[in-house]
Amino acid sequence: MYKLYNVKTWGSLAIHCLLEELEAPYTNIWMTAEQVRDPEFRAISPLGMIPALGLADGRTLYESAAIVAFLIAAHPDKHMSPELGSPDYGEFLSLLLFMSTGIYGFGNFAYSAGDYVTGPAERDGLQAKVRRQVDDHWALIDRRLAGSGPWLMGRDFSALDLYAFMLSIWGYPNEQALHDKFKSVAKLSAAVRKRPKLKAVLESHGVLMPGGYISSDQT
Amino acid sequence: MYKLYNVKTWGSLAIHCLLEELEAPYTNIWMTAEQVRDPEFRAISPLGMIPALGLADGRTLYESAAIVAFLIAAHPDKHMSPELGSPDYGEFLSLLLFMSTGIYGFGNFAYSAGDYVTGPAERDGLQAKVRRQVDDHWALIDRRLAGSGPWLMGRDFSALDLYAFMLSIWGYPNEQALHDKFKSVAKLSAAVRKRPKLKAVLESHGVLMPGGYISSDQT
Repeated sequence: MYKLYNVKTWGSLAIHCLLEELEAPYTNIWMTAEQVRDPEFRAISPLGMIPALGLADGRTLYESAAIVAFLIAAHPDKHMSPELGSPDYGEFLSLLLFMSTGIYGFGNFAYSAGDYVTGPAERDGLQAKVRRQVDDHWALIDRRLAGSGPWLMGRDFSALDLYAFMLSIWGYPNEQALHDKFKSVAKLSAAVRKRPKLKAVLESHGVLMPGGYISSDQT
Repeated sequence: MYKLYNVKTWGSLAIHCLLEELEAPYTNIWMTAEQVRDPEFRAISPLGMIPALGLADGRTLYESAAIVAFLIAAHPDKHMSPELGSPDYGEFLSLLLFMSTGIYGFGNFAYSAGDYVTGPAERDGLQAKVRRQVDDHWALIDRRLAGSGPWLMGRDFSALDLYAFMLSIWGYPNEQALHDKFKSVAKLSAAVRKRPKLKAVLESHGVLMPGGYISSDQT
Protein backbone atom coordinates (compact mmCIF):
# COMPACT_ATOMS: atom_id res chain seq x y z
CA MET A 1 0.00 0.00 0.00
CA TYR A 2 1.44 3.35 -1.08
CA LYS A 3 0.89 6.70 0.62
CA LEU A 4 0.47 9.63 -1.71
CA TYR A 5 1.25 13.03 -0.22
CA ASN A 6 -1.00 15.07 -2.42
CA VAL A 7 -1.75 18.75 -2.97
CA LYS A 8 -4.53 19.72 -5.33
CA THR A 9 -3.19 20.60 -8.81
CA TRP A 10 0.45 20.32 -7.68
CA GLY A 11 3.10 17.86 -8.86
CA SER A 12 1.31 14.97 -7.18
CA LEU A 13 -1.48 15.17 -9.78
CA ALA A 14 0.38 13.03 -12.33
CA ILE A 15 1.22 10.44 -9.68
CA HIS A 16 -2.38 10.41 -8.48
CA CYS A 17 -3.54 9.77 -12.05
CA LEU A 18 -0.88 7.11 -12.58
CA LEU A 19 -1.86 5.23 -9.40
CA GLU A 20 -5.45 5.13 -10.70
CA GLU A 21 -4.40 3.91 -14.14
CA LEU A 22 -2.23 1.24 -12.48
CA GLU A 23 -5.08 0.27 -10.16
CA ALA A 24 -2.47 0.27 -7.40
CA PRO A 25 -3.63 0.39 -3.78
CA TYR A 26 -2.77 3.66 -2.05
CA THR A 27 -3.79 5.93 0.78
CA ASN A 28 -4.35 9.46 -0.41
CA ILE A 29 -3.20 12.18 1.98
CA TRP A 30 -4.47 15.61 1.00
CA MET A 31 -2.20 18.38 2.19
CA THR A 32 -2.41 22.14 2.15
CA ALA A 33 0.46 24.38 1.05
CA GLU A 34 0.91 25.33 4.73
CA GLN A 35 1.25 21.69 5.76
CA VAL A 36 3.87 21.17 3.04
CA ARG A 37 5.89 24.12 4.32
CA ASP A 38 5.74 22.81 7.91
CA PRO A 39 9.22 21.62 8.99
CA GLU A 40 7.58 18.39 10.20
CA PHE A 41 6.97 17.36 6.60
CA ARG A 42 10.77 17.31 6.07
CA ALA A 43 10.88 14.14 8.17
CA ILE A 44 8.82 12.53 5.40
CA SER A 45 10.10 14.30 2.27
CA PRO A 46 13.71 15.41 2.80
CA LEU A 47 13.40 18.57 0.72
CA GLY A 48 9.79 19.17 1.68
CA MET A 49 8.85 18.38 -1.89
CA ILE A 50 5.51 17.37 -3.36
CA PRO A 51 4.97 14.78 -4.77
CA ALA A 52 6.18 12.28 -2.20
CA LEU A 53 5.25 8.60 -2.27
CA GLY A 54 5.42 6.55 0.91
CA LEU A 55 6.35 2.89 0.49
CA ALA A 56 5.13 -0.02 2.61
CA ASP A 57 8.53 -0.24 4.36
CA GLY A 58 8.30 3.35 5.61
CA ARG A 59 10.62 4.96 3.08
CA THR A 60 9.47 7.90 1.00
CA LEU A 61 10.25 8.53 -2.66
CA TYR A 62 10.50 12.04 -4.08
CA GLU A 63 11.04 13.74 -7.45
CA SER A 64 8.05 13.33 -9.75
CA ALA A 65 9.97 11.71 -12.63
CA ALA A 66 11.61 9.25 -10.23
CA ILE A 67 8.21 8.25 -8.82
CA VAL A 68 6.82 7.76 -12.33
CA ALA A 69 9.82 5.64 -13.36
CA PHE A 70 9.55 3.62 -10.15
CA LEU A 71 5.82 2.95 -10.47
CA ILE A 72 5.98 1.77 -14.07
CA ALA A 73 8.82 -0.60 -13.13
CA ALA A 74 6.98 -1.86 -10.04
CA HIS A 75 3.82 -2.55 -12.08
CA PRO A 76 5.08 -3.68 -15.50
CA ASP A 77 1.94 -5.78 -16.09
CA LYS A 78 -0.08 -2.56 -16.40
CA HIS A 79 1.87 -1.40 -19.46
CA MET A 80 2.10 2.25 -18.53
CA SER A 81 5.47 2.39 -20.35
CA PRO A 82 7.28 0.47 -23.09
CA GLU A 83 8.99 -2.73 -21.97
CA LEU A 84 11.74 -1.98 -19.43
CA GLY A 85 15.15 -1.85 -21.07
CA SER A 86 13.81 -1.70 -24.64
CA PRO A 87 14.79 1.09 -27.07
CA ASP A 88 11.25 2.52 -26.76
CA TYR A 89 11.75 2.58 -23.00
CA GLY A 90 14.93 4.60 -23.53
CA GLU A 91 12.99 7.11 -25.59
CA PHE A 92 10.26 7.18 -22.95
CA LEU A 93 12.85 8.02 -20.26
CA SER A 94 14.48 10.71 -22.40
CA LEU A 95 11.11 12.40 -22.89
CA LEU A 96 10.19 12.04 -19.21
CA LEU A 97 13.46 13.64 -18.12
CA PHE A 98 13.26 16.30 -20.80
CA MET A 99 9.81 17.34 -19.52
CA SER A 100 10.79 17.08 -15.88
CA THR A 101 13.93 19.21 -16.33
CA GLY A 102 13.02 21.58 -19.15
CA ILE A 103 9.35 22.25 -18.42
CA TYR A 104 8.58 21.30 -14.80
CA GLY A 105 11.80 22.26 -13.02
CA PHE A 106 12.74 25.21 -15.17
CA GLY A 107 9.16 26.49 -15.36
CA ASN A 108 8.84 26.30 -11.58
CA PHE A 109 11.99 28.35 -11.24
CA ALA A 110 10.18 31.26 -12.90
CA TYR A 111 7.82 31.48 -9.93
CA SER A 112 10.66 32.05 -7.50
CA ALA A 113 12.64 34.31 -9.85
CA GLY A 114 12.16 37.26 -7.50
CA ASP A 115 14.29 35.52 -4.86
CA TYR A 116 17.31 35.47 -7.18
CA VAL A 117 17.51 39.03 -8.49
CA THR A 118 17.05 42.61 -7.33
CA GLY A 119 13.85 44.47 -8.07
CA PRO A 120 10.80 43.82 -10.25
CA ALA A 121 12.39 44.70 -13.61
CA GLU A 122 15.11 42.07 -13.24
CA ARG A 123 12.58 39.58 -11.92
CA ASP A 124 10.26 40.16 -14.87
CA GLY A 125 13.16 39.86 -17.30
CA LEU A 126 14.35 36.61 -15.77
CA GLN A 127 10.83 35.17 -15.74
CA ALA A 128 10.19 36.13 -19.35
CA LYS A 129 13.42 34.51 -20.53
CA VAL A 130 12.82 31.32 -18.58
CA ARG A 131 9.24 31.10 -19.86
CA ARG A 132 10.36 31.66 -23.44
CA GLN A 133 12.65 28.65 -23.11
CA VAL A 134 9.92 26.58 -21.51
CA ASP A 135 7.78 27.42 -24.54
CA ASP A 136 10.60 26.25 -26.82
CA HIS A 137 10.51 22.95 -24.97
CA TRP A 138 6.73 22.71 -25.33
CA ALA A 139 7.19 23.34 -29.04
CA LEU A 140 9.31 20.18 -29.29
CA ILE A 141 6.67 18.15 -27.45
CA ASP A 142 3.94 19.62 -29.66
CA ARG A 143 5.87 18.82 -32.82
CA ARG A 144 6.39 15.24 -31.71
CA LEU A 145 2.68 14.82 -30.97
CA ALA A 146 1.73 16.36 -34.32
CA GLY A 147 4.10 14.03 -36.16
CA SER A 148 3.64 10.77 -34.30
CA GLY A 149 0.73 11.15 -31.84
CA PRO A 150 -1.87 10.98 -30.56
CA TRP A 151 0.14 9.98 -27.48
CA LEU A 152 3.76 10.76 -26.71
CA MET A 153 4.70 7.15 -27.40
CA GLY A 154 2.59 7.08 -30.57
CA ARG A 155 -0.40 4.78 -30.49
CA ASP A 156 0.31 3.58 -26.96
CA PHE A 157 -0.96 5.60 -24.05
CA SER A 158 1.65 5.80 -21.29
CA ALA A 159 2.58 7.54 -18.05
CA LEU A 160 4.26 10.23 -20.18
CA ASP A 161 0.86 11.48 -21.28
CA LEU A 162 -0.27 11.92 -17.69
CA TYR A 163 2.92 13.81 -16.98
CA ALA A 164 2.51 16.08 -20.02
CA PHE A 165 -1.14 16.65 -19.11
CA MET A 166 -0.17 17.80 -15.62
CA LEU A 167 2.42 20.21 -17.01
CA SER A 168 -0.10 21.56 -19.50
CA ILE A 169 -2.60 22.62 -16.84
CA TRP A 170 0.19 24.83 -15.44
CA GLY A 171 0.53 26.62 -18.79
CA TYR A 172 1.56 30.24 -18.42
CA PRO A 173 -0.27 32.60 -18.14
CA ASN A 174 -2.99 29.93 -18.15
CA GLU A 175 -3.90 26.57 -19.62
CA GLN A 176 -5.92 28.07 -22.47
CA ALA A 177 -2.96 30.19 -23.63
CA LEU A 178 -0.86 27.03 -23.81
CA HIS A 179 -3.57 25.23 -25.79
CA ASP A 180 -3.76 28.14 -28.22
CA LYS A 181 -0.03 27.94 -28.88
CA PHE A 182 0.30 24.15 -28.93
CA LYS A 183 -2.65 22.50 -30.65
CA SER A 184 -1.41 18.93 -30.37
CA VAL A 185 -0.79 19.35 -26.66
CA ALA A 186 -4.36 20.64 -26.38
CA LYS A 187 -5.60 17.48 -28.12
CA LEU A 188 -3.58 15.24 -25.82
CA SER A 189 -4.94 17.09 -22.83
CA ALA A 190 -8.55 16.65 -24.00
CA ALA A 191 -7.92 12.95 -24.59
CA VAL A 192 -6.46 12.46 -21.11
CA ARG A 193 -9.53 14.16 -19.61
CA LYS A 194 -11.74 11.57 -21.32
CA ARG A 195 -10.08 8.55 -19.73
CA PRO A 196 -12.69 6.83 -17.56
CA LYS A 197 -10.28 5.86 -14.78
CA LEU A 198 -9.27 9.50 -14.29
CA LYS A 199 -12.64 11.21 -13.94
CA ALA A 200 -12.83 11.06 -10.14
CA VAL A 201 -9.18 12.05 -9.67
CA LEU A 202 -9.43 15.01 -12.00
CA GLU A 203 -12.64 16.13 -10.30
CA SER A 204 -10.97 15.87 -6.90
CA HIS A 205 -8.23 18.25 -8.11
CA GLY A 206 -10.79 20.55 -9.73
CA VAL A 207 -9.25 20.10 -13.19
CA LEU A 208 -11.72 17.89 -15.01
CA MET A 209 -12.45 20.92 -17.16
CA PRO A 210 -9.68 23.21 -18.52
CA GLY A 211 -8.84 26.26 -16.43
CA GLY A 212 -9.25 24.62 -13.02
CA TYR A 213 -5.66 25.35 -12.06
CA ILE A 214 -5.17 28.66 -10.27
CA SER A 215 -1.60 29.86 -10.71
CA SER A 216 0.30 30.63 -7.55
CA ASP A 217 2.26 33.35 -9.36
CA GLN A 218 2.75 36.13 -6.84
CA THR A 219 3.94 38.71 -9.31
CA MET B 1 26.34 -1.50 -30.21
CA TYR B 2 25.82 1.93 -28.65
CA LYS B 3 27.29 5.20 -29.88
CA LEU B 4 28.43 7.57 -27.18
CA TYR B 5 28.62 11.23 -28.18
CA ASN B 6 31.29 12.26 -25.77
CA VAL B 7 32.99 15.49 -24.73
CA LYS B 8 35.87 15.34 -22.30
CA THR B 9 34.77 16.07 -18.71
CA TRP B 10 31.21 16.94 -19.81
CA GLY B 11 27.97 15.15 -18.92
CA SER B 12 28.95 12.15 -21.02
CA LEU B 13 31.64 11.22 -18.48
CA ALA B 14 29.22 9.34 -16.20
CA ILE B 15 27.76 7.46 -19.17
CA HIS B 16 31.26 6.63 -20.42
CA CYS B 17 32.13 5.20 -16.99
CA LEU B 18 28.84 3.31 -16.79
CA LEU B 19 29.35 1.70 -20.20
CA GLU B 20 32.74 0.46 -19.01
CA GLU B 21 31.34 -0.89 -15.74
CA LEU B 22 28.57 -2.62 -17.72
CA GLU B 23 31.11 -4.01 -20.20
CA ALA B 24 28.65 -2.93 -22.87
CA PRO B 25 29.86 -2.62 -26.48
CA TYR B 26 29.94 0.96 -27.72
CA THR B 27 31.58 3.23 -30.23
CA ASN B 28 33.04 6.28 -28.58
CA ILE B 29 32.71 9.51 -30.56
CA TRP B 30 34.85 12.30 -29.15
CA MET B 31 33.42 15.71 -29.90
CA THR B 32 34.64 19.24 -29.35
CA ALA B 33 32.46 22.01 -27.90
CA GLU B 34 32.34 23.53 -31.40
CA GLN B 35 31.04 20.31 -32.92
CA VAL B 36 28.35 20.14 -30.24
CA ARG B 37 27.20 23.68 -31.06
CA ASP B 38 27.07 22.89 -34.81
CA PRO B 39 23.41 22.82 -35.97
CA GLU B 40 24.15 19.47 -37.66
CA PHE B 41 24.39 17.82 -34.24
CA ARG B 42 20.72 18.73 -33.64
CA ALA B 43 19.79 16.04 -36.13
CA ILE B 44 21.30 13.56 -33.66
CA SER B 45 20.50 15.16 -30.29
CA PRO B 46 17.32 17.25 -30.60
CA LEU B 47 18.42 19.91 -28.13
CA GLY B 48 22.08 19.64 -29.05
CA MET B 49 22.70 18.13 -25.64
CA ILE B 50 25.62 16.07 -24.39
CA PRO B 51 25.41 13.27 -23.37
CA ALA B 52 23.63 11.56 -26.21
CA LEU B 53 23.55 7.80 -26.68
CA GLY B 54 22.88 6.33 -30.10
CA LEU B 55 21.00 3.02 -30.17
CA ALA B 56 21.43 0.21 -32.69
CA ASP B 57 18.13 1.15 -34.38
CA GLY B 58 19.33 4.69 -35.14
CA ARG B 59 17.49 6.50 -32.36
CA THR B 60 19.34 8.71 -29.92
CA LEU B 61 18.69 9.03 -26.21
CA TYR B 62 19.38 12.24 -24.32
CA GLU B 63 19.24 13.55 -20.74
CA SER B 64 21.96 12.04 -18.57
CA ALA B 65 19.64 10.62 -15.90
CA ALA B 66 17.45 9.03 -18.58
CA ILE B 67 20.46 7.37 -20.18
CA VAL B 68 21.62 6.05 -16.80
CA ALA B 69 18.14 4.69 -16.01
CA PHE B 70 17.91 3.14 -19.48
CA LEU B 71 21.31 1.44 -19.32
CA ILE B 72 20.79 -0.14 -15.92
CA ALA B 73 17.43 -1.51 -17.12
CA ALA B 74 18.91 -2.77 -20.39
CA HIS B 75 21.74 -4.57 -18.51
CA PRO B 76 20.17 -5.76 -15.25
CA ASP B 77 22.61 -8.70 -15.02
CA LYS B 78 25.41 -6.21 -14.31
CA HIS B 79 23.80 -5.01 -11.08
CA MET B 80 24.55 -1.33 -11.50
CA SER B 81 21.32 -0.55 -9.61
CA PRO B 82 19.02 -2.27 -7.13
CA GLU B 83 16.54 -4.71 -8.65
CA LEU B 84 14.14 -2.91 -11.00
CA GLY B 85 10.85 -2.08 -9.30
CA SER B 86 12.11 -2.80 -5.76
CA PRO B 87 11.87 -0.20 -2.95
CA ASP B 88 15.66 0.26 -3.14
CA TYR B 89 15.28 0.96 -6.84
CA GLY B 90 12.73 3.67 -5.98
CA GLU B 91 15.24 5.26 -3.64
CA PHE B 92 17.95 4.95 -6.31
CA LEU B 93 15.73 6.81 -8.79
CA SER B 94 14.83 9.53 -6.28
CA LEU B 95 18.52 10.17 -5.63
CA LEU B 96 19.38 10.08 -9.33
CA LEU B 97 16.68 12.64 -10.14
CA PHE B 98 17.53 14.75 -7.13
CA MET B 99 21.16 15.00 -8.30
CA SER B 100 20.22 15.51 -11.94
CA THR B 101 17.76 18.32 -11.13
CA GLY B 102 19.21 19.94 -8.03
CA ILE B 103 22.94 19.69 -8.72
CA TYR B 104 23.50 19.09 -12.45
CA GLY B 105 20.68 21.11 -14.03
CA PHE B 106 20.55 23.88 -11.47
CA GLY B 107 24.32 24.11 -11.17
CA ASN B 108 24.65 24.37 -14.95
CA PHE B 109 22.18 27.22 -14.96
CA ALA B 110 24.67 29.28 -12.94
CA TYR B 111 27.06 29.26 -15.91
CA SER B 112 24.52 30.90 -18.19
CA ALA B 113 23.17 33.26 -15.50
CA GLY B 114 24.47 36.27 -17.44
CA ASP B 115 22.00 35.53 -20.25
CA TYR B 116 19.03 35.98 -17.92
CA VAL B 117 19.76 39.24 -16.12
CA THR B 118 21.19 42.70 -16.79
CA GLY B 119 24.75 43.52 -15.85
CA PRO B 120 27.47 41.78 -13.84
CA ALA B 121 26.11 42.59 -10.37
CA GLU B 122 22.79 40.86 -11.06
CA ARG B 123 24.59 37.98 -12.74
CA ASP B 124 26.93 37.51 -9.79
CA GLY B 125 24.03 37.67 -7.35
CA LEU B 126 22.02 35.11 -9.31
CA GLN B 127 25.03 32.80 -9.59
CA ALA B 128 25.83 33.04 -5.90
CA LYS B 129 22.27 32.20 -4.88
CA VAL B 130 22.04 29.26 -7.26
CA ARG B 131 25.39 27.93 -6.10
CA ARG B 132 24.41 28.26 -2.46
CA GLN B 133 21.39 26.06 -3.14
CA VAL B 134 23.50 23.56 -5.06
CA ASP B 135 25.73 23.37 -1.99
CA ASP B 136 22.65 22.71 0.17
CA HIS B 137 21.90 19.79 -2.13
CA TRP B 138 25.45 18.49 -1.87
CA ALA B 139 25.11 18.71 1.91
CA LEU B 140 22.21 16.23 1.75
CA ILE B 141 24.24 13.83 -0.39
CA ASP B 142 27.23 14.20 1.94
CA ARG B 143 25.10 13.52 5.01
CA ARG B 144 23.67 10.39 3.43
CA LEU B 145 27.14 9.10 2.57
CA ALA B 146 28.41 9.86 6.09
CA GLY B 147 25.46 8.03 7.63
CA SER B 148 25.08 5.04 5.33
CA GLY B 149 28.04 4.97 2.91
CA PRO B 150 30.51 4.28 1.54
CA TRP B 151 28.35 4.28 -1.61
CA LEU B 152 25.09 6.12 -2.20
CA MET B 153 23.22 2.82 -1.99
CA GLY B 154 25.17 1.76 1.10
CA ARG B 155 27.42 -1.25 0.66
CA ASP B 156 26.49 -1.71 -2.98
CA PHE B 157 28.31 0.28 -5.63
CA SER B 158 25.89 1.55 -8.28
CA ALA B 159 25.54 3.91 -11.24
CA LEU B 160 24.59 6.63 -8.73
CA ASP B 161 28.19 6.75 -7.54
CA LEU B 162 29.46 7.37 -11.06
CA TYR B 163 26.91 10.14 -11.44
CA ALA B 164 27.85 11.76 -8.13
CA PHE B 165 31.53 11.45 -9.01
CA MET B 166 30.97 13.30 -12.29
CA LEU B 167 29.10 16.10 -10.54
CA SER B 168 31.84 16.35 -7.93
CA ILE B 169 34.58 17.05 -10.47
CA TRP B 170 32.51 20.10 -11.49
CA GLY B 171 32.62 21.46 -7.93
CA TYR B 172 32.62 25.24 -7.77
CA PRO B 173 35.00 27.04 -7.78
CA ASN B 174 36.90 23.75 -8.18
CA GLU B 175 36.84 20.09 -7.20
CA GLN B 176 39.13 20.59 -4.19
CA ALA B 177 36.84 23.25 -2.71
CA LEU B 178 33.95 20.78 -2.92
CA HIS B 179 36.04 18.06 -1.26
CA ASP B 180 36.97 20.45 1.55
CA LYS B 181 33.31 21.17 2.23
CA PHE B 182 31.96 17.64 1.78
CA LYS B 183 34.33 15.05 3.21
CA SER B 184 32.19 12.00 2.46
CA VAL B 185 31.78 13.09 -1.15
CA ALA B 186 35.57 13.40 -1.31
CA LYS B 187 35.87 9.82 -0.04
CA LEU B 188 33.38 8.53 -2.60
CA SER B 189 35.24 10.34 -5.33
CA ALA B 190 38.58 8.79 -4.29
CA ALA B 191 36.97 5.34 -4.21
CA VAL B 192 35.50 5.75 -7.70
CA ARG B 193 38.94 6.76 -9.01
CA LYS B 194 40.35 3.45 -7.71
CA ARG B 195 37.96 1.24 -9.66
CA PRO B 196 40.06 -0.81 -12.10
CA LYS B 197 37.54 -0.69 -14.95
CA LEU B 198 37.54 3.10 -14.91
CA LYS B 199 41.24 3.87 -15.07
CA ALA B 200 41.47 4.20 -18.86
CA VAL B 201 38.23 6.19 -19.14
CA LEU B 202 39.22 8.63 -16.42
CA GLU B 203 42.64 9.06 -18.02
CA SER B 204 41.03 9.73 -21.39
CA HIS B 205 39.00 12.58 -19.83
CA GLY B 206 42.06 13.84 -17.94
CA VAL B 207 40.38 13.37 -14.55
CA LEU B 208 42.13 10.33 -13.08
CA MET B 209 43.61 12.75 -10.54
CA PRO B 210 41.53 15.48 -8.85
CA GLY B 211 41.58 18.89 -10.48
CA GLY B 212 41.60 17.69 -14.09
CA TYR B 213 38.37 19.50 -14.88
CA ILE B 214 38.82 23.04 -16.18
CA SER B 215 35.70 25.10 -15.50
CA SER B 216 34.15 26.80 -18.51
CA ASP B 217 32.96 29.65 -16.30
CA GLN B 218 33.27 32.78 -18.41
CA THR B 219 32.70 35.20 -15.59
